Amino acid sequence: MKETTVRRIKDLDLVSPILIEGLPGVGHVGKLVAEHLIEELKAEKIMEIYSPHLPPQVIVLDDGTVKQVRNELYAHRGEDRDLLILVGDYQSATNEGHYDLSGAFLDLCEEFGVERIYTLGGYGTGQFVDKPQVLGAANSLDLVEEMKGRGVVFQENEPGGGIVGVSGLLLGLGRLRDIDAVCLMGTTSGYLVDPKSAQEVLRILSTALDIEVDMQALEERAKEMERIVGKLREMEKAQTPFETSGEEDLRYIG
Amino acid sequence: MKETTVRRIKDLDLVSPILIEGLPGVGHVGKLVAEHLIEELKAEKIMEIYSPHLPPQVIVLDDGTVKQVRNELYAHRGEDRDLLILVGDYQSATNEGHYDLSGAFLDLCEEFGVERIYTLGGYGTGQFVDKPQVLGAANSLDLVEEMKGRGVVFQENEPGGGIVGVSGLLLGLGRLRDIDAVCLMGTTSGYLVDPKSAQEVLRILSTALDIEVDMQALEERAKEMERIVGKLREMEKAQTPFETSGEEDLRYIG
Amino acid sequence: MKETTVRRIKDLDLVSPILIEGLPGVGHVGKLVAEHLIEELKAEKIMEIYSPHLPPQVIVLDDGTVKQVRNELYAHRGEDRDLLILVGDYQSATNEGHYDLSGAFLDLCEEFGVERIYTLGGYGTGQFVDKPQVLGAANSLDLVEEMKGRGVVFQENEPGGGIVGVSGLLLGLGRLRDIDAVCLMGTTSGYLVDPKSAQEVLRILSTALDIEVDMQALEERAKEMERIVGKLREMEKAQTPFETSGEEDLRYIG
Amino acid sequence: MKETTVRRIKDLDLVSPILIEGLPGVGHVGKLVAEHLIEELKAEKIMEIYSPHLPPQVIVLDDGTVKQVRNELYAHRGEDRDLLILVGDYQSATNEGHYDLSGAFLDLCEEFGVERIYTLGGYGTGQFVDKPQVLGAANSLDLVEEMKGRGVVFQENEPGGGIVGVSGLLLGLGRLRDIDAVCLMGTTSGYLVDPKSAQEVLRILSTALDIEVDMQALEERAKEMERIVGKLREMEKAQTPFETSGEEDLRYIG
Repeated sequence: MKETTVRRIKDLDLVSPILIEGLPGVGHVGKLVAEHLIEELKAEKIMEIYSPHLPPQVIVLDDGTVKQVRNELYAHRGEDRDLLILVGDYQSATNEGHYDLSGAFLDLCEEFGVERIYTLGGYGTGQFVDKPQVLGAANSLDLVEEMKGRGVVFQENEPGGGIVGVSGLLLGLGRLRDIDAVCLMGTTSGYLVDPKSAQEVLRILSTALDIEVDMQALEERAKEMERIVGKLREMEKAQTPFETSGEEDLRYIG
Repeated sequence: MKETTVRRIKDLDLVSPILIEGLPGVGHVGKLVAEHLIEELKAEKIMEIYSPHLPPQVIVLDDGTVKQVRNELYAHRGEDRDLLILVGDYQSATNEGHYDLSGAFLDLCEEFGVERIYTLGGYGTGQFVDKPQVLGAANSLDLVEEMKGRGVVFQENEPGGGIVGVSGLLLGLGRLRDIDAVCLMGTTSGYLVDPKSAQEVLRILSTALDIEVDMQALEERAKEMERIVGKLREMEKAQTPFETSGEEDLRYIG
Repeated sequence: MKETTVRRIKDLDLVSPILIEGLPGVGHVGKLVAEHLIEELKAEKIMEIYSPHLPPQVIVLDDGTVKQVRNELYAHRGEDRDLLILVGDYQSATNEGHYDLSGAFLDLCEEFGVERIYTLGGYGTGQFVDKPQVLGAANSLDLVEEMKGRGVVFQENEPGGGIVGVSGLLLGLGRLRDIDAVCLMGTTSGYLVDPKSAQEVLRILSTALDIEVDMQALEERAKEMERIVGKLREMEKAQTPFETSGEEDLRYIG
Repeated sequence: MKETTVRRIKDLDLVSPILIEGLPGVGHVGKLVAEHLIEELKAEKIMEIYSPHLPPQVIVLDDGTVKQVRNELYAHRGEDRDLLILVGDYQSATNEGHYDLSGAFLDLCEEFGVERIYTLGGYGTGQFVDKPQVLGAANSLDLVEEMKGRGVVFQENEPGGGIVGVSGLLLGLGRLRDIDAVCLMGTTSGYLVDPKSAQEVLRILSTALDIEVDMQALEERAKEMERIVGKLREMEKAQTPFETSGEEDLRYIG
């Protein structure tokens, strides 16, 4: 396998579809939202995307079978418009791979006539976040204004380092193909998987999409994680100043 | 040389062949089994695979001549079915190279009509292993069941990090080409070449292949290695707590 | 996106154009000069260059919209001859990418009939520089002589490590296409963005181009930076010998 | 520039040519021998090889002009047979690049009908070497025997790590094209440029080629280096046991 390869599982004609991207990233915020949507909407897998830019690896499932690491595209039939949801095990392992895979995703967007892209992610603040906000960036000024109206926060110099990876490139390269795209980033410590931040992102996204999504599963996970975070903070306070903060060991527990 | 290149040494029509992959990896378990099989079965080299994804290196042999690093394919004529055995000096040095070489190996599988692949490796536990087990993962549920019946251990969450490299990709990418494949991993410390773990893998493999293989050479090597391990453990016990454990210096002695 | 891609914004026939390259580098000297020229000459953007060799990233602008990282080509109509000015967010992130992008830039030079290239950069000395000099290197002896006459300093063994990146390759690969090219490097500490060094480079460049450029904006920025440097030096003197020098924290403030 | 590119400077028909490779490497032994040969034989440059696998860099010469880093091929007309000498500023910066460039060199060998290749290098021993030996490896047994007769030392397990880079690949990939090739490695500390080791390699090479080469320039450089090494050793002896050995700071002085 030398090239990114799309395996088509089901052929569908979609009506005015919107793409939602939730590949792994900071706090797995985007991944949590996208996977929750797939489950709640009973979205159907229509494509698998394999690529030599992903790690050379299979995942071993609980039943002893393996799964080649990949990205996956799901479809959901809506009332007025359909949804495409992009999830996966990994993002590209190389710079060039990010460009290659984002290009492949935009090819699919053009094929399906995607009218708008939402890319979802976390924005790491380095501190535990009590009330997550949803920061935004978009590839058109109209979209910025629309999202401000929905409670998305646009701050000068945030994120200062730009947006790296697929969530950024779908906006930047999407503009070159005249596809509107917005990135929604839930603030999060960056140390742990963060379902609470994911809830905030989902709240705004479901309003924007005008769909109702049961959030219970995400809420339960958020409560459990809050208990864990509470304990970690107690442990932190109990530490003498000369001990290490312990935070380094907590990255991506969840 | 810009591309992976197959040099054909002998043309053969094979009957219902099975591929056994034993490239270098953890504890060199797969390599020991595959090379032992080649020797005992007097298998014949039919192809050499060269690739710019392998290290840019020649090996100097005892007679002063050199050998370009490569992978090699051997064939053995069986009674009912034939065997192909894949061995080599190295696996790919890059992520993309793993995909490229695995793709080349699967092309050869399709050319020969390979019906099943066994990939062999070690599973590093970080501790000296008295009774090696053989862990498994497969690319079909039927194959998982069959292998359980042969004593292969399938454990939830093992291996947790998935299977990296050719041993994993032949399963994952093999599924996409409808080729059944199973990975057999002998548990091993990961610090030393481990012929004892290789023996366990070979025991299960030879039953599955319904062939008889003299194990004496492997047994002798295992005994010798056990003596070395015994001495290392004594040395370890004799060390004061402030000395380093010595294990770091023992990796891949053998 | 698998290849470097040029997006043409405006078609222009240019008269005997000269290319000025000012991509990011040491002290951002070249970037400051090139961006100052674009502003003062009201040069017009005619092309955007996108590439998988640039970081996989968008920059978030103050209005909440994003910009795919890229290189840009501006044109200015002069009296006798026209100018092309090359600027951008980044240089290539890989060795091969430097060759690929430099090749793409030289293709554009051939298309426009560029007669000479000036590449601009900083030369890091590791110490604060009171009176910046402009060091030079060129791809023809005639050009070396001409530049000596304009006050450019050519020193044996400087720069000792050669010139790395686009500023070097446009000279080296430009020679192979028979395009004259000279690199002007303002000496600078390498720790901070250096508008004072940029002023010296611009002084020589504007004489060579026989154009008048208002330097006020650059002068103001230089004065402000001088105040910052003055304070840093005071802090440095006030430090006890065992404190760190503070310089490490100052890289690319500006 | 996306591909390795050969720039032909002079067309020559050569008689039974032999290729001598002396690109930079351990102790610069091969480079010293090859450049000495070019000077003494007044060999003529016939080709320049440029590649995106070399560092993206120009070298600044003493007159202020630049030179794109490259490899170069020189030719010398002999009485019975001609010589080709391959030198350069760098070897490839990547694994794949070593394969690509070695392939390009072998293409040229086939074009010229090269009958034998000598690759030259140093073999780092980690200690100052009083009497350098010349170790060998070859891609045919006949060649091993011939070289033994000329005083080249063939030792089991030496070099243990194989031969990495162009000097190895020309032997390994050369065999696949039926071109005889031998690697001559002068033993050297590995810390300094080593003209004394180069002298030993040249002594054997000139006998094998049946040519006479004035060694004075190399001898003078060797004597000077011996004085430097002598001083370094005195300094080393004078050091108290707790000081660093100084050797680390001496790498590639010369």
